[in-house]
Amino acid sequence: MNKNPEIGIEIVSGGATAPRGFLAAGVASGVRYEGRRDLGLLFSEVSGGTAAFVCTTNLLKAAPLLVTRESVESGGVRAVVVNSGVANAATGERGLEDAYRMRELAAEELGIGASEVAVASTGVIGERLPMDRVKTGIREAAARLVQDDSAFAEAILTTDTRTKEAAAAVEVGGRVVTVGGVAKGSGMIHPNMATMLAFLTTDAAVEKHCLQKTLGEATERTFNRITVDGDTSPNDMALLMANGAAENEPLTEGSPDYAAFAGAVEAVMRHLAKEIARDGEGATKLVEVVVKGAKSEDAAAALAKSVVGSSLVKAAAYGEDANWGRVVNAMGYAGVPFDPSKVELSFGPVKVFSGGEPVAHDVDEANAALSGDEISILARVGGGEGSAVAWGCDLTYEYVKINGSYRS
Amino acid sequence: MNKNPEIGIEIVSGGATAPRGFLAAGVASGVRYEGRRDLGLLFSEVSGGTAAFVCTTNLLKAAPLLVTRESVESGGVRAVVVNSGVANAATGERGLEDAYRMRELAAEELGIGASEVAVASTGVIGERLPMDRVKTGIREAAARLVQDDSAFAEAILTTDTRTKEAAAAVEVGGRVVTVGGVAKGSGMIHPNMATMLAFLTTDAAVEKHCLQKTLGEATERTFNRITVDGDTSPNDMALLMANGAAENEPLTEGSPDYAAFAGAVEAVMRHLAKEIARDGEGATKLVEVVVKGAKSEDAAAALAKSVVGSSLVKAAAYGEDANWGRVVNAMGYAGVPFDPSKVELSFGPVKVFSGGEPVAHDVDEANAALSGDEISILARVGGGEGSAVAWGCDLTYEYVKINGSYRS
Repeated sequence: MNKNPEIGIEIVSGGATAPRGFLAAGVASGVRYEGRRDLGLLFSEVSGGTAAFVCTTNLLKAAPLLVTRESVESGGVRAVVVNSGVANAATGERGLEDAYRMRELAAEELGIGASEVAVASTGVIGERLPMDRVKTGIREAAARLVQDDSAFAEAILTTDTRTKEAAAAVEVGGRVVTVGGVAKGSGMIHPNMATMLAFLTTDAAVEKHCLQKTLGEATERTFNRITVDGDTSPNDMALLMANGAAENEPLTEGSPDYAAFAGAVEAVMRHLAKEIARDGEGATKLVEVVVKGAKSEDAAAALAKSVVGSSLVKAAAYGEDANWGRVVNAMGYAGVPFDPSKVELSFGPVKVFSGGEPVAHDVDEANAALSGDEISILARVGGGEGSAVAWGCDLTYEYVKINGSYRS
Repeated sequence: MNKNPEIGIEIVSGGATAPRGFLAAGVASGVRYEGRRDLGLLFSEVSGGTAAFVCTTNLLKAAPLLVTRESVESGGVRAVVVNSGVANAATGERGLEDAYRMRELAAEELGIGASEVAVASTGVIGERLPMDRVKTGIREAAARLVQDDSAFAEAILTTDTRTKEAAAAVEVGGRVVTVGGVAKGSGMIHPNMATMLAFLTTDAAVEKHCLQKTLGEATERTFNRITVDGDTSPNDMALLMANGAAENEPLTEGSPDYAAFAGAVEAVMRHLAKEIARDGEGATKLVEVVVKGAKSEDAAAALAKSVVGSSLVKAAAYGEDANWGRVVNAMGYAGVPFDPSKVELSFGPVKVFSGGEPVAHDVDEANAALSGDEISILARVGGGEGSAVAWGCDLTYEYVKINGSYRS
């Protein structure tokens, strides 16, 4: 067992079509807005693989998630059809029929079974999909499948300002396997998934149960560690498709190279998670909070997530004001016991709080640590072994502007 | 027992000095800013009363809260000394010494015992109080005590734009008793107290245990039902002093007029809670969310609080956009089970969602329901008996501006 799974993981260029056998397309179907890409297809030419799926904890689950879950449970998902613009959430029975129909249309165009297709939607809640446009879009996308995911990555965006992709390669059973992915944010992003979609691919062969475990654990450490605005959407999902094109011996949890593979999946997802936080609605800065010395990783994660989720910390980040009191305060209401008199806190290289009291420091120097487009906050809360990192962004005028008039 | 405690409750003018025997003062001591009132004293000339206290759930409790708790536990608190500008939170042992010293200085000036004095602070976290100014301020305030709380109400404000006071009178045991109060918000306001201070007074005689129960229950339905930004501060507290000047038979839970008295306390606190939400940092609108038909009052409260706490709902309120999907969505992640297909939702008079699906409605009419300075959202989630109301405000550019540069 590889003790350091990061060793041997090489970050490579490309995204969801970096692994062998995956093709993608993105077209402008006019689901909601004219002239922008809003419908995407991602497809593995190779059949017989496995798939894993995680989705929102919101009680209100959008129709596509119900359909995707059904496909994944029946095994062998190797394509996903996505639209942006309309979320197909809170649309009742008719919305569910639309999602099934979308799956069927994609399966027909790709010449595969309906249960091999996953469905995802993102956009405004409570409106129905214009199915005629969706149908035309799917046909067009199927005709444009290429080994390049840039049009697909664009088609899944909502208020994101840029596409997000990542890929990594690692040796498994003597063969190089690649893991790739694309994702979108960028509002309603909160731990436990958020309005985010992530489509991950790998050409490794991976046993199904093991693939689900890999996705679940990596989600815990990546997509569940980001927040933009505290709202958890009904449409969030991450799908990982493993097509086996690398022809390795199928991976299980007991495989010698499992840790390296899981590390590559986590590396790709971490990259995407950070990109989502960085591109949060209206954001100008990525805020990274590292908590060390907690009783457990879960405790550290809860503390870190409380800090990146605080509106006051986010506004201070925007104002480049090293208002450390708000950071300590946000840890105080995280619901995790710790001893404030043991806390040490730094903004970048500047220590501001130690032993329950402020540390004399140059305020300009501390503010300067907030002036770049990446802010790093480190809190040590005791002598425990638990550490975790969480990512968020600043709260800006632009966030209010975007969300005060999203629909109009 | 009065079945409707609201009957017989008369809203009267004034605030914390409306009940007999209470005096107040507020002066400019220069704790943080020159020339604005920032130090207040509230004092009952009558001794021998009782007091009750609730405070923040934040693990990080500001020094004044520890001192106040000690005073209240020893019984008979009849004065409170408050400063704004510096929170005296995250200030360690020396901050605790400062809070004790503040209590002692007030007791000396008022000629009463130290344990008869409560202490409160609000403002920036992590800075120490300038004790020389505090001392001068307390002396000056003690010399200016009058039966008018307007200077006191001003002295406790931070980013609040106006003072908040309320009073109600009710007959108890054949005597008219008055309940009064003042409060401040206005950021870091979240259920479970928030950066809010509330000082409540009554001239009723009330048995101590009964007074605590009254304050606790009313807090649950008022101050714990408001949110401004989701941040819970280390300084929040509500103090209720009952001086017995009305000379009624001391109230207990079994008293025939207890419900009327508790109703008067809740009415005063509800008024203050709504004023705090309405005056949230940067707010232009009060948002009231009523949830009915839940399994219990707690379930209804959790759903209502989730909606008023959603950044997306708050931004939509600001934009006067009847984006009901965000309301349903926020209920979906409240952690309370309900059946989405049973939900009915209205913005003011306009029904927008029913039976799990959108209801055809005039969008302009729905948006118009958001155009005033009070927005009313009603959600019926089933056939249960539980109902609750929560209050919040919109999220505006001004909130970001205030909190991006609070310290500078």
